[in-house]
Amino acid sequence: MLMGGMMDTIEGCQPVLEALRSGHSINRILLSRGSERHSTISQIIALARKRGIPFEFLERRALDKLAATASHQGVLARVASHEYITLEQLLQVSQRKNEVPLYGVLDGLEDPHNLGAILRSSDAAGIHGLIIRNRREVGLTPVVAKASAGAIEYVPVARVSNITQAIESLKKNGVWVIGIEVCGNMPFDKVDFKLPTAIVIGGEGAGISELVRKKCDILASIPMGGRISSLNASVAAALVMYEAYRQRRR
Amino acid sequence: MLMGGMMDTIEGCQPVLEALRSGHSINRILLSRGSERHSTISQIIALARKRGIPFEFLERRALDKLAATASHQGVLARVASHEYITLEQLLQVSQRKNEVPLYGVLDGLEDPHNLGAILRSSDAAGIHGLIIRNRREVGLTPVVAKASAGAIEYVPVARVSNITQAIESLKKNGVWVIGIEVCGNMPFDKVDFKLPTAIVIGGEGAGISELVRKKCDILASIPMGGRISSLNASVAAALVMYEAYRQRRR
Repeated sequence: MLMGGMMDTIEGCQPVLEALRSGHSINRILLSRGSERHSTISQIIALARKRGIPFEFLERRALDKLAATASHQGVLARVASHEYITLEQLLQVSQRKNEVPLYGVLDGLEDPHNLGAILRSSDAAGIHGLIIRNRREVGLTPVVAKASAGAIEYVPVARVSNITQAIESLKKNGVWVIGIEVCGNMPFDKVDFKLPTAIVIGGEGAGISELVRKKCDILASIPMGGRISSLNASVAAALVMYEAYRQRRR
Repeated sequence: MLMGGMMDTIEGCQPVLEALRSGHSINRILLSRGSERHSTISQIIALARKRGIPFEFLERRALDKLAATASHQGVLARVASHEYITLEQLLQVSQRKNEVPLYGVLDGLEDPHNLGAILRSSDAAGIHGLIIRNRREVGLTPVVAKASAGAIEYVPVARVSNITQAIESLKKNGVWVIGIEVCGNMPFDKVDFKLPTAIVIGGEGAGISELVRKKCDILASIPMGGRISSLNASVAAALVMYEAYRQRRR
């Protein structure tokens, strides 16, 4: 790592420009040599100067090696990344608060706006923390941070390599695992959320994966009164989280 | 309009490529002359050929005139736009179904993903239709259509020039108008949604505007148990819509 500590990059003209405009904390901007005549790049340079953020020009090939994507357009911004906690630490959050555990498990969520919205709902509904996958799932990126409206600072997130193993650990700790599915056999508002609970939400496209599905104690459904068959993933998560919150407030 | 009827454009390399990949109905693709060597453009041409969608090359200046944005990158796709209904037609939807009216009013929503998610939730929760503003609010764009997962075809949307006047019309028709606000004085699950109801949701940044706020019969709040003060707009809409749906199903 160039700057020490865990770093993320924001890549591409518009994303970096927006990060600058939104006042996002940026450590350093790396630009492709010769790109300064491009109008967006010159805006980026002007804003970086104004905010006192260091920038430097590198050869295109050097940028290619530093970038996480192929669509960096010759612009990378290095930002401090948000930190994850371990599953063990997550299990201690509710203990420390002396509350009955309530977790969210995200199995393959891909859209950063959805993860941001879920972080907001989690904070509001008293979720003790989220578990996400470290592969093929969106992590705590700057876009997520922005969409979370600050909730990323308050909701602990554990990133695990294997969701089914994480569910096994939850179960060993007395947590009931409730998968939310279109074809679930119990309406979500009939589930007893006063018990230690983990709510499992699947990804936008495929829903909960088959292996994870088999590990759930209950598959709960959200009634759908119209013609389409599923809700936005962050909406589904919020409805169930708020039902848990409602039962626990009583 | 070039093609007759109401048309929208999708603009830019990636959006047009994604529209082609997703099978979106496209009438015609317009490209900047000389751009065909660009790798994304050549992919667009190949996909357009495969799907039998006509494309033509125009001078860059001609494209600039046809484009709605400055970021078209030399690629425009013309697509049929979704149609709006009038407020009068909207008021007839529940009558035709012989149901107690339940509407959503969106006051300044800007994010197309949120509107898409709200269309999905509206379809699922039995909302008879939405009312949106025709200024400074996102309309039924292709991005919204995609985010709605098909619900855009089933949920009627009236676009009005003045939300407060629309609310007056709703009230004259015996509809109770419930604004959802952080500082609302009644928890949303204490509202009687068995009555004819319109649920008002504000925009992502500013919430419900002052004039609209004053027209609401009740300002209802969603309890927040954490440290952040608001939910994602589509999440807030879904929680209230589903509470209405829950009460009406009983």
